[in-house]
Amino acid sequence: MIIENNMINLDQSRMHEALTLAKSSLVRTSPNPKVGCVIYNQNGLLIGQGVTSPPGGPHAEINALNSAKQAGHSLRGASVYVTLEPCSHTGRTGPCTVALTQAEVAEVYIGVVDPNPLVAGRGVQMLSQAGITVVQDVAKTECQAHHAAFFKWITTGLPWVSLKGAMTLDGCLATANGHSNWITGIEARTHVHQLRARVDAMMIGGETARRDRPSLTVRHCEGSDPQAVAISRTLSIPNDAPFLRENTILLHGQAASDERKSILEDLGVRLIELPLHNSGKGLDLKYGLQELGHLGITHLCVEGGGFLHGSLLQDKLADDVHLYIAPTLIGRGKPLFNFTSVDTIAEGIELEQNYMQQLGKDIYLYGVTKYSDH
Amino acid sequence: MIIENNMINLDQSRMHEALTLAKSSLVRTSPNPKVGCVIYNQNGLLIGQGVTSPPGGPHAEINALNSAKQAGHSLRGASVYVTLEPCSHTGRTGPCTVALTQAEVAEVYIGVVDPNPLVAGRGVQMLSQAGITVVQDVAKTECQAHHAAFFKWITTGLPWVSLKGAMTLDGCLATANGHSNWITGIEARTHVHQLRARVDAMMIGGETARRDRPSLTVRHCEGSDPQAVAISRTLSIPNDAPFLRENTILLHGQAASDERKSILEDLGVRLIELPLHNSGKGLDLKYGLQELGHLGITHLCVEGGGFLHGSLLQDKLADDVHLYIAPTLIGRGKPLFNFTSVDTIAEGIELEQNYMQQLGKDIYLYGVTKYSDH
Repeated sequence: MIIENNMINLDQSRMHEALTLAKSSLVRTSPNPKVGCVIYNQNGLLIGQGVTSPPGGPHAEINALNSAKQAGHSLRGASVYVTLEPCSHTGRTGPCTVALTQAEVAEVYIGVVDPNPLVAGRGVQMLSQAGITVVQDVAKTECQAHHAAFFKWITTGLPWVSLKGAMTLDGCLATANGHSNWITGIEARTHVHQLRARVDAMMIGGETARRDRPSLTVRHCEGSDPQAVAISRTLSIPNDAPFLRENTILLHGQAASDERKSILEDLGVRLIELPLHNSGKGLDLKYGLQELGHLGITHLCVEGGGFLHGSLLQDKLADDVHLYIAPTLIGRGKPLFNFTSVDTIAEGIELEQNYMQQLGKDIYLYGVTKYSDH
Repeated sequence: MIIENNMINLDQSRMHEALTLAKSSLVRTSPNPKVGCVIYNQNGLLIGQGVTSPPGGPHAEINALNSAKQAGHSLRGASVYVTLEPCSHTGRTGPCTVALTQAEVAEVYIGVVDPNPLVAGRGVQMLSQAGITVVQDVAKTECQAHHAAFFKWITTGLPWVSLKGAMTLDGCLATANGHSNWITGIEARTHVHQLRARVDAMMIGGETARRDRPSLTVRHCEGSDPQAVAISRTLSIPNDAPFLRENTILLHGQAASDERKSILEDLGVRLIELPLHNSGKGLDLKYGLQELGHLGITHLCVEGGGFLHGSLLQDKLADDVHLYIAPTLIGRGKPLFNFTSVDTIAEGIELEQNYMQQLGKDIYLYGVTKYSDH
């Protein structure tokens, strides 16, 4: 039996528990989705919970089933809430659908169906055929938003691209002569580190690498460091730049000298050459994102650089924006979003699904980009 | 007896009633302050309320006393809450202190002492000498903020200058080629009209006059039209511009031709010539503001023009900012605050006493300017 989402509040509330579990986990699961799962028995008791383990480890459903078993709970007749459709294929781990069937659970509530062509409704079908009641689309919008990066990557091969930036109220990341310390306060900077802990990789441009010398590590909060990525046409990045680590990726153009390449390779970083953008100006960023996607990066956060942010927006490659806005006016400084003006307001890039929050004296604004069809 | 503010919640709550009364009044009182007054009897019953009448009419205290008398209430022993110190001088109306004394009220609670040199503590003194208990500084911060424009005007001769603007999230009032319809939605535009109904005058620059042709009237809400002011060096404003009304003021430079002047004067507008700014670029805005202050304008709202906003900020003449921000990115368009970048972030103009609100899909942000000492 397959039942469409019947909007029972209890189901949604339990699905939100599964979502919160997934969101609060500091484990990096990519390129797998970070799924959350909770299990309730027929008496309404929470008996199991789990989040996806790092690649090669068990999926959320298995972790949740195991946690129930280890606590001595019977799973027969239980209700399972899982943010994403359980897998039906044998990848690095056995299919979750089989484990759920063998555990003799009665119901599986699913947040959103997996667009992964290897799953895509087959999980629902297998559970249903095994006599389990399947309820789909429970808190679908929230689950879809949570898994947005994975969904984009599995369907297009490209990572979800978040633009992050601190700016003045008049849209500048620095004064005309380059001063930027400090636009935002400590609350905003801590928030940025929480963002770094959630994404797979952080990317900067060459100018930011030279001027700000960021380490791109997680410091003001719990969590492990994201992969560091920098893009520089000529690889003119200081050899002692703090973000140059074992697994750092440098995207560059043909213009990079063999000498620069060999020095940087000796530091253990991975070099990827990009073709020129078809406008003739700058590098082909989409090509670069495809390469990062091949390496299993599903969520990339870009700490531009006005030109880097501007180019990603102009090529419609940025998916969302995390803005930290200081209530300060500085005049005609360096713009955070540096791209050629559109012709009419209607051609602008709208930020949808807005979320706004006061962070100390600053404003945090989040939005998902919506590009015009013009 | 003079008692300092003792933070009794009841007093503050009654003072907020007086403030709300004043704020909700659509009457223009300038150059007098828009004072609110409520009167309670000894049983805790609200027996009178009043707001300042237009110039020449009674002050708030007199209106409140009269409303109590007309309803047949005895004023003996009553408590009076008034947002500003009652006047002690005989201007166009008799002194309020005398009326309060004659009414035999027991207590007068005052929001903030009047900085007007003709009052300045003398009201408090006269009431106290008459045996009335005077409590000062009740909800002082709020009363001070409400009377800020009057306080600035009475102490400096200059109007309080509010900058109003609609901009994209990247700080632009229009695309590079001048398109600006529509940056913000109807909720934001309605809010602007509420602002227009509250200020004495609206000012625009010549470019806005030519391009947007605003009428500067109050349309989407209740309230009367503010005085219209435009600034244009050469008076190159279309003769049929909708804001050219009987009492419109045009600020211009020496460069305006006699022909333009005589055509515009025939339309009934008032012309005021300004000297050049001492930088040699543009007109002396401070001189212009002084002239507007002489005419009794205590609160001027400027609907720039990036250059007009920028010049007022650069000369430290703008007092607060009303911003309507659309969550849209358009690239390097025309900046709403067009002035030379400061050198360091610390030299930026901070917006304090922030207030933020969602207006439809847009963001309303209010702040009081704080200029750096650099």
